[in-house]
Amino acid sequence: MKRTFLLTLLVSLSFLSLKAADKGGEEPVDLVNPFIGTSNFGTTNPGAVCPNGLMSVVPFNVMGSDLNKYDKDARWWSTPYEYHNVFFTGFSHVNLSGVGCPEVGSLLLMPTTGKLNVDYKEYGSTYDKEVAHPGYYSNHLIKYDVKTEVTATLRSSVARFTFPKGESHVLLNLGEGLTNESGAMVKKVSDTEWEGVKLQGTFCYNSQAVFPIYFVMRISRQPLASGYWKKQRTMKGAEAEWDPDNGKYKLYTSYQKELSGDDIGVWMNFNTEANEQIDVQMGVSFVSIANARENLEKEQSGKDFDIIHAEANRKWNDDLSRILVEGGTKTERTIFYTALYHTLIHPNILQDVNGQYPAMESNDIRTVSDGNRYTVFSLWDTYRNVHQLLTLVYPERQRDMIRSMIAMYDEHGWMPKWELYGRETYTMEGDPAIPVITDSWLKGLRGYDINKAYEAFRKSALTKGKDNPLRPDNDEYMQKGYVALHEQYDNSVSHALEYYIADNALSRLADALGKKDDARLFYNRSLGYRHYFDKEYGMLRPLMPDGSFYKPFNPRQGENFEPSPGFHEGNAWNYTFYVPHDVMGLAKLMGGQKKFVDKLQSVFDKGYYDPANEPDIAYPYLFSYFKGEEWRTQVLTHKLLKEYFKNAPEGIPGNDDTGTMSAWAVFNMIGLYPDCPGEPSYTLTSPVFDKITIRLDKAQWGRDSIRIETIRPNADAVIIREVTLGGKPLNRYRITNDELLKGGELKFYLK
Amino acid sequence: MKRTFLLTLLVSLSFLSLKAADKGGEEPVDLVNPFIGTSNFGTTNPGAVCPNGLMSVVPFNVMGSDLNKYDKDARWWSTPYEYHNVFFTGFSHVNLSGVGCPEVGSLLLMPTTGKLNVDYKEYGSTYDKEVAHPGYYSNHLIKYDVKTEVTATLRSSVARFTFPKGESHVLLNLGEGLTNESGAMVKKVSDTEWEGVKLQGTFCYNSQAVFPIYFVMRISRQPLASGYWKKQRTMKGAEAEWDPDNGKYKLYTSYQKELSGDDIGVWMNFNTEANEQIDVQMGVSFVSIANARENLEKEQSGKDFDIIHAEANRKWNDDLSRILVEGGTKTERTIFYTALYHTLIHPNILQDVNGQYPAMESNDIRTVSDGNRYTVFSLWDTYRNVHQLLTLVYPERQRDMIRSMIAMYDEHGWMPKWELYGRETYTMEGDPAIPVITDSWLKGLRGYDINKAYEAFRKSALTKGKDNPLRPDNDEYMQKGYVALHEQYDNSVSHALEYYIADNALSRLADALGKKDDARLFYNRSLGYRHYFDKEYGMLRPLMPDGSFYKPFNPRQGENFEPSPGFHEGNAWNYTFYVPHDVMGLAKLMGGQKKFVDKLQSVFDKGYYDPANEPDIAYPYLFSYFKGEEWRTQVLTHKLLKEYFKNAPEGIPGNDDTGTMSAWAVFNMIGLYPDCPGEPSYTLTSPVFDKITIRLDKAQWGRDSIRIETIRPNADAVIIREVTLGGKPLNRYRITNDELLKGGELKFYLK
Repeated sequence: MKRTFLLTLLVSLSFLSLKAADKGGEEPVDLVNPFIGTSNFGTTNPGAVCPNGLMSVVPFNVMGSDLNKYDKDARWWSTPYEYHNVFFTGFSHVNLSGVGCPEVGSLLLMPTTGKLNVDYKEYGSTYDKEVAHPGYYSNHLIKYDVKTEVTATLRSSVARFTFPKGESHVLLNLGEGLTNESGAMVKKVSDTEWEGVKLQGTFCYNSQAVFPIYFVMRISRQPLASGYWKKQRTMKGAEAEWDPDNGKYKLYTSYQKELSGDDIGVWMNFNTEANEQIDVQMGVSFVSIANARENLEKEQSGKDFDIIHAEANRKWNDDLSRILVEGGTKTERTIFYTALYHTLIHPNILQDVNGQYPAMESNDIRTVSDGNRYTVFSLWDTYRNVHQLLTLVYPERQRDMIRSMIAMYDEHGWMPKWELYGRETYTMEGDPAIPVITDSWLKGLRGYDINKAYEAFRKSALTKGKDNPLRPDNDEYMQKGYVALHEQYDNSVSHALEYYIADNALSRLADALGKKDDARLFYNRSLGYRHYFDKEYGMLRPLMPDGSFYKPFNPRQGENFEPSPGFHEGNAWNYTFYVPHDVMGLAKLMGGQKKFVDKLQSVFDKGYYDPANEPDIAYPYLFSYFKGEEWRTQVLTHKLLKEYFKNAPEGIPGNDDTGTMSAWAVFNMIGLYPDCPGEPSYTLTSPVFDKITIRLDKAQWGRDSIRIETIRPNADAVIIREVTLGGKPLNRYRITNDELLKGGELKFYLK
Repeated sequence: MKRTFLLTLLVSLSFLSLKAADKGGEEPVDLVNPFIGTSNFGTTNPGAVCPNGLMSVVPFNVMGSDLNKYDKDARWWSTPYEYHNVFFTGFSHVNLSGVGCPEVGSLLLMPTTGKLNVDYKEYGSTYDKEVAHPGYYSNHLIKYDVKTEVTATLRSSVARFTFPKGESHVLLNLGEGLTNESGAMVKKVSDTEWEGVKLQGTFCYNSQAVFPIYFVMRISRQPLASGYWKKQRTMKGAEAEWDPDNGKYKLYTSYQKELSGDDIGVWMNFNTEANEQIDVQMGVSFVSIANARENLEKEQSGKDFDIIHAEANRKWNDDLSRILVEGGTKTERTIFYTALYHTLIHPNILQDVNGQYPAMESNDIRTVSDGNRYTVFSLWDTYRNVHQLLTLVYPERQRDMIRSMIAMYDEHGWMPKWELYGRETYTMEGDPAIPVITDSWLKGLRGYDINKAYEAFRKSALTKGKDNPLRPDNDEYMQKGYVALHEQYDNSVSHALEYYIADNALSRLADALGKKDDARLFYNRSLGYRHYFDKEYGMLRPLMPDGSFYKPFNPRQGENFEPSPGFHEGNAWNYTFYVPHDVMGLAKLMGGQKKFVDKLQSVFDKGYYDPANEPDIAYPYLFSYFKGEEWRTQVLTHKLLKEYFKNAPEGIPGNDDTGTMSAWAVFNMIGLYPDCPGEPSYTLTSPVFDKITIRLDKAQWGRDSIRIETIRPNADAVIIREVTLGGKPLNRYRITNDELLKGGELKFYLK
C-alpha cells in the first residue's frame, strides 16, 4: 500500500502566498502530512476538515475484519482511523482528532458495487492509493475498484465516488461508529435527499453526556432504487420461525417514512457507467435537521467538489501561513506545519450558519451575536499550550473561545472542563478555564466580559464540593489546603495540583482586576502543594485523611497508564515537578538548586519522563529557571523533538490531545514555551528553524509580525550562546508576552 | 379475580334513549360485555374505543411473565389481551380487534410505584377489579395499589391513574408491543409533553408492509423528574468492561432531545398524595406528529376524563340503538349487542381531524374532501357479512368505506384486499372488493364513483398474473377456468373459489351498468368451479397442471388450521359448498337436491363444519335453497348460536375477524343472512328476539325502520311455520334487500 500526502500545488489565494511562492513554491499547506499521528495512539486522522471546522470526513477502518490490527470493539479504542489497519467501512462524518476516548465518528458513508450487501463485515474493503492533504482525502477500494475522494466545508462535506461500470451502491450506515451510543432516525425526503438524527455520547465513561447529530444527505444522481435497512432484534420461538429477517439485516424496499432503531442504514442502487462519478453531500448540525440543511445549502450552493476542495486548501494555507519558517529540513518543516495543522482542529465551531447552537447542558437553542461559538474544549490538555499559541497567533479565535466559555457559564452555571458539543463530560480534573482566560487577559487580549469570567472562577474556587462539579473535593482543599487520598485511585494529588495552578492564575487575575484580598487568598492556596512534599523521598506524595503520608509509596507506580494512588495518568515522578508557579519554592523544599536540577535530570536519565502525557511536558523548561542550567532545556527540547516527533504515522508520542502534543512541538520548534499556564511568559529554547516569521494581528498586538532568527555555527548546534530581543542582549531565558511583542525580534546565537 | 362489565347507567343523549329507557332503563350500551371473545382466540379485547375509532386503549397482558398462560413471544399470538392471563404491562394504544396476525398494540403506558424500574418483566403487575364497557376499561394493579382507567375519543385517549401516597411513576414503553416491527423515536417537548413515532408492521408475514404511528403524550402534572431509557446493545471486551449499562436498560437522566432505538421508553417520577389522580392523554396520527397533537387538542380540549368517557358511551349507545331488540334472555341481548359492538370497530377511520391521511402504498399525504377515510379492511372476512350489515344499518359508513376503497385504487392502482393503515398486506386471497361494492350498488347505495370502481374491478379481473397483486394466478385462471396446484400448499382451489365469487358479483354489476358482454364473460368465468368437481368424491378437489385431480386426496386434511393441498385455512369439506352463486348448479353436479342436502347435512353431523373460520359459515343457509329443507337452516342457526356464541370470554368460536363472526351472530339473531356476497339478498331464519326494530336512514332507504316480529308457541320453538312480509304471506325463504325495504315488516310465525 502506497500512501502519499499530496504535494500538488493548489493555487492559494492567501495574501502570503506570493511570499511563500518566492521560496521555490513551497506552500505551508503542501508541507502538511495528515498521516502524522495516525498510529502509535496519536489518534489524529487523515480526514478532510477545515480549520476549526465542525465537519470532518474520515476514512473509517477500525471495525469489521480480523485483517485490522486494531478493532474498536475488541479493545479500548478512540480514533476512527489507524494507519496500519487495512479494512475500510466508509467515511465517518464529524470526528474528534487526538483524543483518548471513543466518541462521534458515525454517519458512515460507503460506496460498493455488485450485489447489494448492507453488513459492514461483508461490504468493507481493503484499499490502496491513499492520498491526504489538508481538506482532502482519497483512496481506492480494491474490492470494488472505486476511487473515493472527500472534502469539507465548515459544516458540510462532499464525497466523490468514481465507479466502474455495472451495479453500484451508496450506503449510509447509522448503526455503527466510534461512539458507544446507539440509536438513529432517518427519513427519505426526496429521491435524492435523506435527513435524520443519530445519538452520540458516553465519552470517557460519562454515560449521561449524550447529544444528537442532525444530518441531511444529498446525492447527485437519482438512484434506481433506494431504501433502508435495520438489523432485526433476535426473536425466539414462533416469531423467529415465521420472520425471515429474524436477527438479520432486513431490507426495507418500499417503506420510506421515518425509520428508527439501533442499527439502521440507507441503501441506494445505481447502474453506473465506467468512471461515472457520484457526489454525496452531507450537512450536519447540533441544533436541528433544518439547520443541517441550511448549512449544506449555504456552504455548498453553486460549488462543486473541486471548488470546495480548493477553498478548504486555501483556508488551511492562509492559517498555516501565519507562521512562516525558513531553514530546517523539509522533514522538520513538515513536522512543524503538521503540528500547527493539528492545533487548528479543536476547539471547533459549533454554531450553524444561522448562528444557532445548543446551549450548554440545556435543551435551549441560542444564537451567537457575533463571532463563533466553539466546542470540544479538552481543557486539562489545552490549557498548557494550545490556548497560548492561539492567543498569540490566532487571537480572534482565542477571543471567541473565551466568549464561548463565558457563555457556557451563563448557560450552565459553570466554566467548562471537558466540554463536548454542548455537554460537560467532566473528564480529567482541575479548573483549567482559569489559566486559559487569565493568560489571555494578562497578555492584553480583550473583547469579553472578564468580570463575569472572574465571577465564574470565584464560584468554582469557593463553592463547597457537593455543589461543585469542577472541584468536587473543594471542602477538604479549602479547609486543609490539600486533598487527601480517600480511595486507592481517587487521583487526589493530581486534583490538588491542578487547583494550585488554577488558584495561582486566579490570584494573578484578581491582582490585575484590583481585588487584592482575593489575590492574597488564592496565592496562599496555590502554595498548598507543600503539604505533599515528603522529605524522605524529596517528592510529592499522597496524603491520607489523617495527615500522614500514604504508604507503601512507590514513586514509579503508575507508569504506562497503570493506576497509581494519588496520581492520574502518571506517577509521582510525572507530577512532582508540576508546580510551575513556584519552581523556586519547590527547589527550596528539595534542598536547593542543585538537588532540584539533579533530581529533574534524573527523570530524563532514568526514563521516568513520559513524553506522551501532559503532566510533565513542561519539565524540560524548569532547568531554565536556574542560571547556568539553561543548556539542559535546549539540549533536551531538541533531543525530545527528534525522538518523538517524526514525519511518520508514529510521529506523535501518544494521544495528540486535541493538539496539545502538537502545540508542544510548534512552540519548541520556534524557541518559546509557555511553561506556566496563567503566567503570560515564555521560556526560551533554541529554535529548529533559522528564520521564523509570526504574522500578527496588528490591531491586537500593535505590530505586524515577530521575527525569530537563529544563527548557528553548524547544523547540529543547539545550545544558546546569546539571545537578543529587539536588538538588545537578553541575559535571561524567560520573557513575558509583552516583552516579546515590544521587542519584535528575537535572535538566538547558538554555540 | 372478579370482572364485571359496567351496568351503571350513564345518561345517554341518544334520540332513542327515551324509548329504551321506557323498557326498564336497559340501554343497548349497557348490555355490551367487552370481555366476550377475549379468550378462545376470539382476539377481541376489552379496551376503550369509540365506534370505528382510530384510537383504542387496551390492557396489555401478553408478555413478561410465566404467570401468563399465553405469551406473545412464546407462540403465534395476535391480540394484546387474553382473559385468562394475569400479568399486566401497560395500556397499548391503537390495536386491532379480532385478527389472526400480531400487529400494532404498542405505545405501552404503565403506572408504577416505588423504586423506578423500566424492565417490563419486573414492572408488570397482576391485577383485579376489572371493569369494561364500551369506551371504558379499568383495573386495579395489585403490586402498586394503583387504580387504572382509560377512555378514548376517535383519535386520542386519556388514562386516569389513581395512586397511593409515595413515590410514583408513569412509564411509556416504546420498545415492546404486539407488532413484530421495532424502532421508535421520542422527544420531550415540555415538562408535560412528549412526541414521537414508532414503526409498526410485518403483519401476517408481510415484512414490507410497515408504517409509522406518530404520537403526542401529555401528562396532567409536571413530573419531579423525567427522562428516557434505552436497552443498550450488548458489547464485548473493553467496551463491555467500562460501560456500566452494557446490555442493560440505561436510564437517561439529563438528555432530553430526540432519542431513537429499538427498545426505548420514557419515565416520569412523582411524589403522589394518597388517591392522587394523574391523567395521561395520548393523541395519535398516521400522518405526522403535528397532526397527532392537533387530534389530541381538537378532540379533548376543555374535556376531562369523565366527559370524554360519557361521550364515548353515548356514541356507542347511539350506534347500538340502531337495532333495538325485545325479548330473548338478557344473555341473548348481551350476546347480540356485544356482537353488534364488535362489527363497529373495524374498518375504522384513518384521517386526522384536519382530514389528512397517508395515501395508499405511498409517501403522499392526502386530504379527504368530505366523509371519512377508512382503514383496516380485512376483506376476505368482511365481504361475507360485515359490509352487508353496514350497508343496511350504517349506510353512511359503508358509503365512506366504498369511497375509501375507490380512493385506494386511485392512489395505488389496485382495490384493497387486506389493507392496514395505508399498506396492502396481501393477506388471504381473492378479489373481495368486488362483492363488497357490488352488493351496495345493487342495493341502491350511491354516492361514489361506480365507474371507477368498475374500472378497478375489470383491471384485477383481466390483468395478467405477474402484474396482478390481487390475482397472481390469473393467467391460468383466465386460460383454463381454474387454478391448478403447483405447490403442495399453494391454496389453489381457495384462490379460484374466491375468483368465481368475485366474477359472479362482477357479472351482476356489469349487467346493472349495461355492460352485457362483460356480464356474460364474468358469469361464465364464475362457473369454472365445476372443473374442480370430482364425481368420485362428489366434492371439489384440487387439480394438477395436467388437468388430473390431485392425489392422494383426503377431504378431511386441513382440519384445525393444518395445511391442506389446495385449500387455505380449511379442507375440501369446508370449501366444497362454497359456490353460493350457483347452489343449484352444484346440487346438479352432485346428483340432485337429496344428495346435496344429505352431503351438506353430513358436514354438520360428522363434525366437519368449522364454525371458527369463514369459508363454510354460510353453509347452514344453503338448505333453504331447497323446498322443504328450510327447517334445517332454522334448527342449525339456533343450535350453532347456542353452541358457539356465549356471554363469556370464550363466547366467539375463533378469531372474530374484524367483526365477521360477530356479524354472523347479529344477522342470525335477527333472522336474516346475506349468504351470497354480491347478491343483494338475504336468506331467512327464525330470529332469537320477539321484536326487532332496525332504525334506518330514511333518505337512503325510504323508510324510518324495519320491524321484525316473531310469534312463537313456546320459548324453544325455532322452526318457521309462516312468514309474512309487509303483512302478506311469503312463500319462500330468500328475499331481496329491495323486498325487505319495501315490505318494511317481517313476521315470523314459529311452530
